[in-house]
Amino acid sequence: MLTPAEDAQTALLLEAGTQKPGNVGPTRDFDDTTFHQFLVGAVGARRGFDAVGSGEKGAEKDVSVGEVFLRSVRGASAHEGGNTQFGAVLLLAPLVVASARGGVEDAPEVAKETTPEDAARFYEAFDHVDVYVGDVDDEYDYDVRDPEARERVVEDGVTLYDVMEESAARDGVAREWTDGFPRTFHAASKLETVRGDTREAVRSAYVDLLREEPDSLVAERRGTEKAREVTRMARELPPDELDARLADERINPGTTADIVAGAVFVALRRGWSV
Amino acid sequence: MLTPAEDAQTALLLEAGTQKPGNVGPTRDFDDTTFHQFLVGAVGARRGFDAVGSGEKGAEKDVSVGEVFLRSVRGASAHEGGNTQFGAVLLLAPLVVASARGGVEDAPEVAKETTPEDAARFYEAFDHVDVYVGDVDDEYDYDVRDPEARERVVEDGVTLYDVMEESAARDGVAREWTDGFPRTFHAASKLETVRGDTREAVRSAYVDLLREEPDSLVAERRGTEKAREVTRMARELPPDELDARLADERINPGTTADIVAGAVFVALRRGWSV
Repeated sequence: MLTPAEDAQTALLLEAGTQKPGNVGPTRDFDDTTFHQFLVGAVGARRGFDAVGSGEKGAEKDVSVGEVFLRSVRGASAHEGGNTQFGAVLLLAPLVVASARGGVEDAPEVAKETTPEDAARFYEAFDHVDVYVGDVDDEYDYDVRDPEARERVVEDGVTLYDVMEESAARDGVAREWTDGFPRTFHAASKLETVRGDTREAVRSAYVDLLREEPDSLVAERRGTEKAREVTRMARELPPDELDARLADERINPGTTADIVAGAVFVALRRGWSV
Repeated sequence: MLTPAEDAQTALLLEAGTQKPGNVGPTRDFDDTTFHQFLVGAVGARRGFDAVGSGEKGAEKDVSVGEVFLRSVRGASAHEGGNTQFGAVLLLAPLVVASARGGVEDAPEVAKETTPEDAARFYEAFDHVDVYVGDVDDEYDYDVRDPEARERVVEDGVTLYDVMEESAARDGVAREWTDGFPRTFHAASKLETVRGDTREAVRSAYVDLLREEPDSLVAERRGTEKAREVTRMARELPPDELDARLADERINPGTTADIVAGAVFVALRRGWSV
């Protein structure tokens, strides 16, 4: 039995180590970020995961979600490429903390109980990685690109959960936080039923998620119409053809990949084996 | 800068995460062992690596090579497949301990200073993984398949270095131990000169090693003539063709892959970046 920290790292590796349509993976590097850099990112991300306890009674450390996230993002930047695991680690942080405290199913409560200090750690993480940030409402007082925002969130008592609520409308990972991780848990349940071919299991989980809902990273970068088109393509094309088409158009459904990483973690915690 | 433990795990991942002729990798699973199982093995192997210190002054823990090896082998068995990292971890253990104590270049001394207790840990590791063991001289008193051998090595004062000397004639990793890790350090020096395409760098390091010397795992399993033939093929065929030929004949040059993992670790310690 692996610890929550080890399972979280395994989740990042199985996600990266499965060729999923449009993503960097075993058979594809992007110009700015390679498969090997995703592997190094998974090594470094362990720094945050290791801050939580072993999940055994009496062994837990009370490390906050924001601190786990920040340490993981800093660690995952130990390569020369672009952002590799920001979204996946944002999704994993409450899941890992919940696992270490008692059970992964408590992640929705862990998310709700985050504090303004967690929010400050979240904002600090943007110093360590070049994350794509789409359009933010001009009226929003806590834009991550504003260096003073991290002080204001603490002063104003804005929690990390509040920040996620603000971006839930346009970010699929934030929506998992505010909706109780429904897609993560659902995809995990499907993964658990598959024994044997783990590559096919992970790829199927990804394609199923992509068929259900437009990817929010694609929507932010290429517009909602393109994101809807990708969902249609995922429904109509065989996965290999989908992969070729997305690669041609340089479309990377990154949020869907993040949810897959979370789903693999949940499945592993529930006993899914590789 | 990653720690020795993090670099050791990175080395296992970059080795596994590069498609090298004949090996399990990004584009190939074996019937009994998959690429994903190599990834899980690299997660578990970290348990041994984490037992050494950070490499910073005053932070080092004095954990023995045998203990690091045993914990890594036990951790790396956390999947349902066959042996994934036994040889690589045997090579990495003295390199990681040397790095944590002061510098990777001291690995030859670290290997020489191993004790009978290290040998006992080595024999114990065979309980945790199904490792291929070839013909052992009937006269040899410390056959790993003999359950009492691990007690006898301690009683008789046989060190892990002595055990490696005994098997150096037929095992390429043991020969690295007794010869001062010459192929590991040489391959690392070549890796260090390559910036950018790390997949190509790792694959080239592997093919170069295979061209120089017959692989000892192939020799043990398929005979020395076949191992020599593989070396000739490596010299004559383009890597992709070599890969296809070895895959067809189910020939896996596993010792050469182990040395690549060691070389990647040394290169990373010397500042090679991904």
